[in-house]
Amino acid sequence: MKAVVLEGKDVRVKDIAKPKPAADEALIKVQKAGICNTDLELAKGYMDFQGILGHEFVGTIEYALDPSWVGKRVVGEINISCGQCALCRAGLTKHCAHRDVLGIVNKNGAFAEYLTIPLKNCHAIPDVLSDRMAVFTEPLAAALEILESVKIDPEEKVLILGDGKLGLLTAQVMRQHAENVTCVGKHPHHLDMLEQSGIVTHESGTELERQFSVVVEATGNENGFLEALRLVLPQGVIVLKSTFHGESRIDVSKIVVDEIHLIGSRCGPFAKAIRQLERNRINVEELIDGDFPLEQWGEAFALAQKPGTLKVLLSL
Amino acid sequence: MKAVVLEGKDVRVKDIAKPKPAADEALIKVQKAGICNTDLELAKGYMDFQGILGHEFVGTIEYALDPSWVGKRVVGEINISCGQCALCRAGLTKHCAHRDVLGIVNKNGAFAEYLTIPLKNCHAIPDVLSDRMAVFTEPLAAALEILESVKIDPEEKVLILGDGKLGLLTAQVMRQHAENVTCVGKHPHHLDMLEQSGIVTHESGTELERQFSVVVEATGNENGFLEALRLVLPQGVIVLKSTFHGESRIDVSKIVVDEIHLIGSRCGPFAKAIRQLERNRINVEELIDGDFPLEQWGEAFALAQKPGTLKVLLSL
Repeated sequence: MKAVVLEGKDVRVKDIAKPKPAADEALIKVQKAGICNTDLELAKGYMDFQGILGHEFVGTIEYALDPSWVGKRVVGEINISCGQCALCRAGLTKHCAHRDVLGIVNKNGAFAEYLTIPLKNCHAIPDVLSDRMAVFTEPLAAALEILESVKIDPEEKVLILGDGKLGLLTAQVMRQHAENVTCVGKHPHHLDMLEQSGIVTHESGTELERQFSVVVEATGNENGFLEALRLVLPQGVIVLKSTFHGESRIDVSKIVVDEIHLIGSRCGPFAKAIRQLERNRINVEELIDGDFPLEQWGEAFALAQKPGTLKVLLSL
Repeated sequence: MKAVVLEGKDVRVKDIAKPKPAADEALIKVQKAGICNTDLELAKGYMDFQGILGHEFVGTIEYALDPSWVGKRVVGEINISCGQCALCRAGLTKHCAHRDVLGIVNKNGAFAEYLTIPLKNCHAIPDVLSDRMAVFTEPLAAALEILESVKIDPEEKVLILGDGKLGLLTAQVMRQHAENVTCVGKHPHHLDMLEQSGIVTHESGTELERQFSVVVEATGNENGFLEALRLVLPQGVIVLKSTFHGESRIDVSKIVVDEIHLIGSRCGPFAKAIRQLERNRINVEELIDGDFPLEQWGEAFALAQKPGTLKVLLSL
């Protein structure tokens, strides 16, 4: 089968053997996959990953031990837990100490004709959802994860820093719960999209006053966190979504004196993301900037790397 | 009246005029006051405070507009809010943008024969509570504040870093809610006290495994925070209690990937602290290392400054 493989520092399409599913795994024929910033970081050496890239996908199960799943269209959770360590037994499976992660840690990913993943990770996709929408399940789940840790009151003044893919999804999710949502970003075209959903927007560099009870940091860089600390009200919440290399200099006493809550947030609930997409609550179609056949992965990656590009898809 | 005054960088006893209460204030004759680390920091120049030191006290109301308060023994909340700014109107009075703070910001404190404070800040003390116990209301409230932001499940594994005054109060508070409480500290005598309350203790430097769902950082220094990050489980909570000068280098991505909750926590609920003391739930008597008449403030401060000293009181 054809697959986009990271070997050393090179990414290339290769013809490799179709994977064989382990007893607990489904064999999935991939239909569509999304390129995430993490894929671009992996190609630069992040996590020392080697193998098939890609962790956002929708596909159809070709084989599973339970035959009722065969033929079903599915998306898949990316953390593959051992089920046995202390963290798994405490219910923290996505933090499993020995986890593999699809296309990120020790497990071949989704930019290929086929992938295997434990059946327990699979979620069936309702017929009403197109592949183009279903492939947003993983990033939308990451945005929805915020609601698992923070109660958003309708009166809350919410700020999203960053108008990349995650920022735009998060702003829409927050707008469902709070009247007063603001997004600060760099791309007028992205901010226009949000304005249509009743979200107040500002271009980066606009001088804002400290006024927000919830700030979501989704800029992908260190300055976003410092800006969040400046704009959050006392007893407010900062949700951290960006991962970036290195350490940040933080005035810890400010967090204590202002009684700030700082919440790290990563992967989220797939089932809820699917329901949101099914109900057409989140505009994802406008977030797609390109859709290429797998063979044109080079063009797709080049477009995904351009500043301001939103989601780029690969189709099989 | 006699008062311990910070003038420039000097602390001295002076004879100054008895204060006159404003219309909303009570005039309080101080009976006992506690020396806090913050007082020692103020004497070194922290907050640029000038005036009478002291913010932990118990005293008797000599005058108030409402005569039913006269003669009552009281303690007082230290944040004096304007009641009018946006933060006050949002109910965040202890974060008032224009607040004075008793003996810390722009308001003469408690190391004196008399002080004035708004009557709304006063809490009556039940007769069963001695002055020596009542004076712990403020620091105990700070420990109880943790319960206002974090739900402590009986199954939780709680770690307290630091065995100073706040660490010892916090460990006792946590032990009321969780079976499994550990404290790491530097003073064998303090740790022995906690062992008697069923708290597991280790001396600093003991190699511990990552195993705690809640970690309270009360060491007063930067290393405590880094240690907290090392020992907290994924999806765990770190409560920050220490204020210290300067910035810390923090790996923000670790907070995101491990989905840590970081909670800054400061002043707490006086009414709950008084009830805890009244029910004799917290051992404070053993935390008193000295009780000096006001005139011997020099000896009292010298003792309070010695590493390992717990609470030192001034009596009037």
